[in-house]
Amino acid sequence: MAQTSVIHPPQRGFPDDEFETRTAKAQALMADHGLGALLLTTEPEVRYFTGFLTQFWQSPTRPWFVIVPAQGKPIAVIPQIGGECMGRTWIDDIRTWPSPTPEDEGISLLSEAIRDVMGETGSLGMMRGPETHLRMPQAHFDALMATLDGVVIQDCTDIVRGMRMVKSVREIEKISYVCDTVSGVFESLPKLIHTGMTDADIFRRFKMACLEAGADDAAYVVGALGQGGYGDIISPPAGRVAETGDVLILDTGCTFDGYFCDFDRNYAFGEADDAAHAAHDAVWRATETGFEVARPGTTCEELCAAMAAVMEEAGAMGNDVGRLGHGLGMQLTEWPSNRIGDKTVIEPNMVLTLEPGMTFAPGKVMVHEENIVIREDGAEWLTRRAPREMPVIS
Amino acid sequence: MAQTSVIHPPQRGFPDDEFETRTAKAQALMADHGLGALLLTTEPEVRYFTGFLTQFWQSPTRPWFVIVPAQGKPIAVIPQIGGECMGRTWIDDIRTWPSPTPEDEGISLLSEAIRDVMGETGSLGMMRGPETHLRMPQAHFDALMATLDGVVIQDCTDIVRGMRMVKSVREIEKISYVCDTVSGVFESLPKLIHTGMTDADIFRRFKMACLEAGADDAAYVVGALGQGGYGDIISPPAGRVAETGDVLILDTGCTFDGYFCDFDRNYAFGEADDAAHAAHDAVWRATETGFEVARPGTTCEELCAAMAAVMEEAGAMGNDVGRLGHGLGMQLTEWPSNRIGDKTVIEPNMVLTLEPGMTFAPGKVMVHEENIVIREDGAEWLTRRAPREMPVIS
Repeated sequence: MAQTSVIHPPQRGFPDDEFETRTAKAQALMADHGLGALLLTTEPEVRYFTGFLTQFWQSPTRPWFVIVPAQGKPIAVIPQIGGECMGRTWIDDIRTWPSPTPEDEGISLLSEAIRDVMGETGSLGMMRGPETHLRMPQAHFDALMATLDGVVIQDCTDIVRGMRMVKSVREIEKISYVCDTVSGVFESLPKLIHTGMTDADIFRRFKMACLEAGADDAAYVVGALGQGGYGDIISPPAGRVAETGDVLILDTGCTFDGYFCDFDRNYAFGEADDAAHAAHDAVWRATETGFEVARPGTTCEELCAAMAAVMEEAGAMGNDVGRLGHGLGMQLTEWPSNRIGDKTVIEPNMVLTLEPGMTFAPGKVMVHEENIVIREDGAEWLTRRAPREMPVIS
Repeated sequence: MAQTSVIHPPQRGFPDDEFETRTAKAQALMADHGLGALLLTTEPEVRYFTGFLTQFWQSPTRPWFVIVPAQGKPIAVIPQIGGECMGRTWIDDIRTWPSPTPEDEGISLLSEAIRDVMGETGSLGMMRGPETHLRMPQAHFDALMATLDGVVIQDCTDIVRGMRMVKSVREIEKISYVCDTVSGVFESLPKLIHTGMTDADIFRRFKMACLEAGADDAAYVVGALGQGGYGDIISPPAGRVAETGDVLILDTGCTFDGYFCDFDRNYAFGEADDAAHAAHDAVWRATETGFEVARPGTTCEELCAAMAAVMEEAGAMGNDVGRLGHGLGMQLTEWPSNRIGDKTVIEPNMVLTLEPGMTFAPGKVMVHEENIVIREDGAEWLTRRAPREMPVIS
């Protein structure tokens, strides 16, 4: 039985003032940038401004649109099947079409709504930058633009990303809850699994324990199992049976009310060799350093460099992950990245992962990850700290 | 304890000849359409041609590209973090860049790879049609196209969709296994849940049972609980406690080795009123009719009309879902749609859902869904048939 969270589950959803605040902030930034409206098509952005939470996005059939006008509440332009669910949010203006209708999949309705709020001219903000995509068919987007002759698209990635990077108190509560809940599962794991189990059964047992402990979904569970270490950390189970000397990593993004944790734990079956223990010690110490360095005013690049230095001194031979952590919240990974080149200045109420990883022998990597929230005076753990020494599973 | 599947779990992955066949078919169609290459950016398409299976797509940070050339194996242009995982597939030519690098997120590497296979001119196939999207930043796509002056984009949605709609024997085995496994869970559900449980606990218990029974993930679980019926079928639990007279729907897309089931079951707590029982009987009979009609040569429109007629005779007041089923496989929902206007001709080895739904009282809908595979002589159930009468939970 997985250990339960020490934190009470937060209230689900948000009161309207959460969305009023977000919308007002966006509108102030839109005014600064001369934007007549924002057009959003992706799940986190639609949810950020409306509260619309559903797994139905897994179906690629239907696009979903939200317009943030220069004043007033956002407008939802969505398939009829979502009308009732959107009707329970704070949104008043919900325009629906019977979908699927590939001949006109919401395009004329959306075009009309954009012109209602902007008129025939002006700048429409859309997310075109790194880590974004347009969640609608390219051909349909071209058809939309053909109806909006006088409208110019302006990239609004920075506006939305800048807002989403800094979390509200209520958002942090949700992330904190799921981090704490899954921390308990990881602490219990040595009682749940044993040498001789297949990696597939280990993954399965872990997912069930996360659900039982209070996570809504074990949405993302990847990892690896290998003698003395593992080679990559994004794969499903490979079909291996755990043997003495194997090292296991489980990396998970579980959710509560649409908010993610994203952290990992390493375990040794029976025993691990010195190289694996030393590598674990190095990445563990790198998170300690990251925790000390991550405070308001530090850049993500500086945070990365500080963690990298610990691993280099420990003999790191490189890192295929490409960064040492990232933002966290409504998505498994969010802006910014702890990497050289990311000049983002860390601010209070950002939620970040510290994810030092290193190649410590040919084909063998060791990755560790914790989640933190930035306070005025420094970082605070959201995950319960991993033990410095890899736990041993019998 | 959930009832286990009567079918043995199929082999995970595919032998190389599965991908050789897919690639050869695509290349024959590309030749017909004068395409020099396909550029694919979305998870199912990348997986379809390479076998690359990872949950890492949940991170929006990194794009992933596959090029299908006119001859030879596909080429993967991917972030370094995926190199080892892609290295276990049948793909030989794997080009990686250290990612994240938002300044050049694979664009120059991709451009070079495209020119390697196409030269400086010709038609590049990309998916631009209904139910598709481009999974890379719009600004990066513009940057790519600026390097490909002589290349014209041609929509290849029909090529890829047409191939993916008709499943191989091995694909059907995977879908069949997860359908059967989850059927057993639904059959066991009356023993696992009871009046007085919250909807959240019911969802949780169901997900755990699916994992325990052999599903890799309970990726999609939505539903509703309401007195005498429910209003929508895409929502997470609303926080309701199950009372006598409530009707519960659980609709799920569980996965095995990256292949989905997608079906639902309805239950009555203690008892349900006559209207709910009559509505369930109507949608159940509509699936019976759908099963009879769904055979090679029938169009999806005809299949839809046949099911709709059963519900209309039973007094249906409309349908917010917008269609009465759809394709199924690597995604929760795939092309085609069982709707008026979809002229797709049903072929052997298509996997479809039959999903009749109707509004039977103001604000109350009843939706039923089963999964079938089309054989030469007609449909075959992949799900174990739901009971005609809603099971009662005490």
